[in-house]
Amino acid sequence: MTLQAIEAAAARMRGHVRVTPLLNAPLLDRLAGRRIFVKAECLQVTGSFKARGGWAAVSALPAGARGVLAMSSGNHAQGVAWAAAAHGVPAVIVMPSDAPAVKVANTRAYGAEVVLYDRVRDDRDALAAGIAAERGLALVPPYDHPEVIAGQGSVGLEIAVQAAEAGIAGADVLVCCGGGGLSAGVAMALDARAPGLRVRTVEPAGFDDMARSLVSGQREGNAAATGSVCDAILTPMPGALTLPILHRLAGPGMVVSDDEALRAVALAFRYLRIVAEPGGAVALAAALFRDDLPETVICTVSGGNADPEIFAGALARFGG
Amino acid sequence: MTLQAIEAAAARMRGHVRVTPLLNAPLLDRLAGRRIFVKAECLQVTGSFKARGGWAAVSALPAGARGVLAMSSGNHAQGVAWAAAAHGVPAVIVMPSDAPAVKVANTRAYGAEVVLYDRVRDDRDALAAGIAAERGLALVPPYDHPEVIAGQGSVGLEIAVQAAEAGIAGADVLVCCGGGGLSAGVAMALDARAPGLRVRTVEPAGFDDMARSLVSGQREGNAAATGSVCDAILTPMPGALTLPILHRLAGPGMVVSDDEALRAVALAFRYLRIVAEPGGAVALAAALFRDDLPETVICTVSGGNADPEIFAGALARFGG
Repeated sequence: MTLQAIEAAAARMRGHVRVTPLLNAPLLDRLAGRRIFVKAECLQVTGSFKARGGWAAVSALPAGARGVLAMSSGNHAQGVAWAAAAHGVPAVIVMPSDAPAVKVANTRAYGAEVVLYDRVRDDRDALAAGIAAERGLALVPPYDHPEVIAGQGSVGLEIAVQAAEAGIAGADVLVCCGGGGLSAGVAMALDARAPGLRVRTVEPAGFDDMARSLVSGQREGNAAATGSVCDAILTPMPGALTLPILHRLAGPGMVVSDDEALRAVALAFRYLRIVAEPGGAVALAAALFRDDLPETVICTVSGGNADPEIFAGALARFGG
Repeated sequence: MTLQAIEAAAARMRGHVRVTPLLNAPLLDRLAGRRIFVKAECLQVTGSFKARGGWAAVSALPAGARGVLAMSSGNHAQGVAWAAAAHGVPAVIVMPSDAPAVKVANTRAYGAEVVLYDRVRDDRDALAAGIAAERGLALVPPYDHPEVIAGQGSVGLEIAVQAAEAGIAGADVLVCCGGGGLSAGVAMALDARAPGLRVRTVEPAGFDDMARSLVSGQREGNAAATGSVCDAILTPMPGALTLPILHRLAGPGMVVSDDEALRAVALAFRYLRIVAEPGGAVALAAALFRDDLPETVICTVSGGNADPEIFAGALARFGG
């Protein structure tokens, strides 16, 4: 993995993937007691940063691939399905049966074939590998893949430019973390382009495999596979490619509760007028509710494909 | 009113007011059967385009003014309150007593003094004029004011640039319309900078004073003062300054129902991941649900200061 790979992926996605805004709100800053800038990847074309990695991977398919196969709880699914459709390439998406209905429906609407599996009982990787081999599809894993990490890293290139425009020389950059693809890509881009900005991963309580792995230096797993409202970022363990990058470049991992994520969803509604899904709001939650942070914090709101009932529930409990 | 006034206002607000993105979504286009581009002013710094007119007016205050006074159902209130605070100028905001609580609370949070009035019983203009005279405050009306129209017109300058970048040479530009400040400013900017783009106003059913005034050429009023969920754009009649501009430059006015506006709120949640308030979603509703439109439509989502209960209700009825 090199900065050049990130730059090449960014060049391939130009005109297709959106440069998302870096938002802020005076009243949110007052509430938090610090300056918070939000990289609004929920405004990305498929509703999450996953459109970037999807485009990067599909646009660099190995010769002879008859299509792509991806495994995803929903956002990577939509990113790959959209990118494949735009390239005229068939896509099969392997999704957990408890993925939010809206994510399954959108993935199908982009034209992909969806194969559902049970998150606890089935071996997702084996299932996916079997279908890929049988049909001659190139596997596009959700995070542990050089082109995917390079694609997500384009978020970091944009943050470097936008932070400089906003006069931000030093800040923590909090990134919503599942397997670490976005975090690793952003960390590499910032290391090269904005060395005053340090990445910190943010995960839901009970699914803090990355935070523990950053301490131990080993790929630690989680006790459970389900049980958080942050469906987008419930991964079994860090990636083999992503952990070494983050172990070298990232600060200590952070953890927030489901209720903090939902409260951040409600505050993003009120003060930023963006739709964040819970898993996409954990970094904002850390920016709002943790003390061990500098005066200026940048955070990703990494996805906005929210279940309407869960979103309305967050507003009823915390919003307004 | 000249293009130069709009350009001057845009220059004064640079670095303070956000250049908002022009969003689109493949799945929304498929649903609508046309290409829809959304100028997302809900992402503006105070949650609506009103930050522009507020900044334009406050930054051009007459010498000797001891502060500003504005009348508003909530978005102009926040725009002026924010701009006044940023300029270190006192602000009094006259708001209807039925304005959404979140808008009143935010206006106060920006540091303004809020004076409430009854939308049916009280004479807002007389009340405001009295306070302004007594305290030496400059009146900043919500739409019928050259600097306010010039400020809102900066939306049109941005649309002209962004449409050209997206390769759009011809389109209808649907604008959410209360008194016509945004519509008139955008119409003037586009007339000069993007003559293939034509403004059309969109209003809630029962409050279509602009649509009727565009037909008659006179300032027509509405039968009622309240009774639509689109609180942001319930105005008694078009402005004396705005109507002539729109009579000259705009196409026929459009009208949508409250339910269509709420359905647009839900679809903006799902496909664009932005928070639209009902009055800020009427143009998107027209883009989605009307037939007499070209293949490519640009619409403003002009505000996102949504009441959480109304928003959740829209999701429950139409969302997901």
